[in-house]
Amino acid sequence: MDAASAAIVAKPASVDGLLDLASRDMAGVDALIRDRMQSEVPVIPALAEHLIGGSAKRLRPLLTIAAARLAGAKDDACLRLAASVEFIHTATLLHDDVVDSSELRRGKVAAHLIWGAPASVLVGDFLFARSFELMVEAGSMQALEILARASRVIAEGEVMQLTRSHDLNLPQDLYLEIIGAKTAELFAAAAEAGAVSAGATPEQQKNLRRFGKNLGLAFQLVDDALDYSGEAGTLGKNAGDDFREGKATLPLLLAIARTGPSEKAFWDRAVARREQEEGDFEKARRLIAETGAETATLELAARYADDAKAALAAFSSSNSWRPAMEELADFAVQRKM
Amino acid sequence: MDAASAAIVAKPASVDGLLDLASRDMAGVDALIRDRMQSEVPVIPALAEHLIGGSAKRLRPLLTIAAARLAGAKDDACLRLAASVEFIHTATLLHDDVVDSSELRRGKVAAHLIWGAPASVLVGDFLFARSFELMVEAGSMQALEILARASRVIAEGEVMQLTRSHDLNLPQDLYLEIIGAKTAELFAAAAEAGAVSAGATPEQQKNLRRFGKNLGLAFQLVDDALDYSGEAGTLGKNAGDDFREGKATLPLLLAIARTGPSEKAFWDRAVARREQEEGDFEKARRLIAETGAETATLELAARYADDAKAALAAFSSSNSWRPAMEELADFAVQRKM
Repeated sequence: MDAASAAIVAKPASVDGLLDLASRDMAGVDALIRDRMQSEVPVIPALAEHLIGGSAKRLRPLLTIAAARLAGAKDDACLRLAASVEFIHTATLLHDDVVDSSELRRGKVAAHLIWGAPASVLVGDFLFARSFELMVEAGSMQALEILARASRVIAEGEVMQLTRSHDLNLPQDLYLEIIGAKTAELFAAAAEAGAVSAGATPEQQKNLRRFGKNLGLAFQLVDDALDYSGEAGTLGKNAGDDFREGKATLPLLLAIARTGPSEKAFWDRAVARREQEEGDFEKARRLIAETGAETATLELAARYADDAKAALAAFSSSNSWRPAMEELADFAVQRKM
Repeated sequence: MDAASAAIVAKPASVDGLLDLASRDMAGVDALIRDRMQSEVPVIPALAEHLIGGSAKRLRPLLTIAAARLAGAKDDACLRLAASVEFIHTATLLHDDVVDSSELRRGKVAAHLIWGAPASVLVGDFLFARSFELMVEAGSMQALEILARASRVIAEGEVMQLTRSHDLNLPQDLYLEIIGAKTAELFAAAAEAGAVSAGATPEQQKNLRRFGKNLGLAFQLVDDALDYSGEAGTLGKNAGDDFREGKATLPLLLAIARTGPSEKAFWDRAVARREQEEGDFEKARRLIAETGAETATLELAARYADDAKAALAAFSSSNSWRPAMEELADFAVQRKM
């Protein structure tokens, strides 16, 4: 039995402990988010509310708060950075959904299907600019540098994914580079910026960045697995989106490698050429389960989660934020949505 | 004869004097732009080169340099801010062309028609993030605040334009608010950030911001007039784009008001409902010329250019940057492209 399964049997990891610790801070972050998504141009708060209000998990701003508090933050500068991180994330979601023509996001119809792609692109730009206004308010040039760089790396990751996403021979290390850039970089920067705002030592900043990076990789690997095993009802988006878009994620790449010549014609048609027929997704789902591609993806995620936890070793275990963050790493792997 | 026409007769204003003064600085800005549009993801420099290389006028970064040098900048911090301003501008162009489905930009096929709308959106995001990395390098939190705010106001202006652009009864003050946000705000911020980087006094910052704002308004009004009077060959984009998109710009709004009930059916069909027929653009062009709508638009632009020049009054006229910037304001009104 692997580590992830053992933890499931022992006690399901949850993000509740961390949310409890951070509840006052996260209420402040929420207030900042609601305040700064306002605009005199009515479409902007309407579209932002649709995406931001309600069901968002807010993992990334939570990570900024947790890193800052674990590193001993005494003031509330981390709240502005946390809100800024959520705005960067929301802006990329709006643009991604336009780029991928996704239909569902956070359990709702994607914004571009209601307000149109142009409004989604421009409101994404608005939120992105707002995130930098919030960083300026937080007042740390080093945090600004970290988050500006992360924003650029995310865009590079998205473009890389766009240009390589239908390559069924995508090497695993390139896949990891793509998710490292498009997802894990913001987790890394969220934690690092939190640490910086707390006046953490360079060593602590490095460890918290490493925690965020590994957590982000685990998170995205699980996301990619859930796209084949999850249910739309709990997922907040359509299961099978990646498959329909022919996106070369690890579960698919592993299944393609493991099924070999016998299914080559199927993958070429359904994924590379995207000439999909009724039942194709169910077949892909079955092959991904039967070849162990799903399990291998989740095992890799569990290893990154372990690396994330290891990055916290230098922090005192009597600091209550540390076990709560360790549980967040387990939760990232065990979650079903 | 109005001021603008008098200047044309006297001697055509040109941007060459300012470009001469700024040639060393602008070579540095160009080197920064070329360096920072690089990425290990090949599509990014290819797409950026298509848009940035060659025919760009670089008015906005020139404004940052001019404002900084007029205010006595001794170091080269303004170069990074100037490059950053051009990246913000380029990012918005990429997104605008997707939003408007434009076919031509800077005399070339629009990037989204070559690389696709998704790549244009994401490379825009890359350039936007790069602009903030450059601001961080420049090291002024105040300049960052000015440019972050400007980026947000631009996005608001674009959304406002998107939602109001087919309103044939758009009041003139709302039209001016839209172009003030989507265009003039970046001119204002470009000049203000340059002044800040030079350590200008608050009064000088205010005056240079006012110069930029008024220059930007003049510039956009002329742009909107040229969309009806210009030629695609010199314009670098298709004349008639605004008309085809049913965009409520001032020349059109004035012509609609001035033709009254006699042409209401024509405007309703061709602009509001965009059911355009062969010859519609030529008719609109004729009505805009005959009603004096074009002249009125250019006269308003000339008034803003005069306001821009007035904002420089407190600077010494023996400072060679001042007359060169005054000529830039005249050029903004007299240009044919």
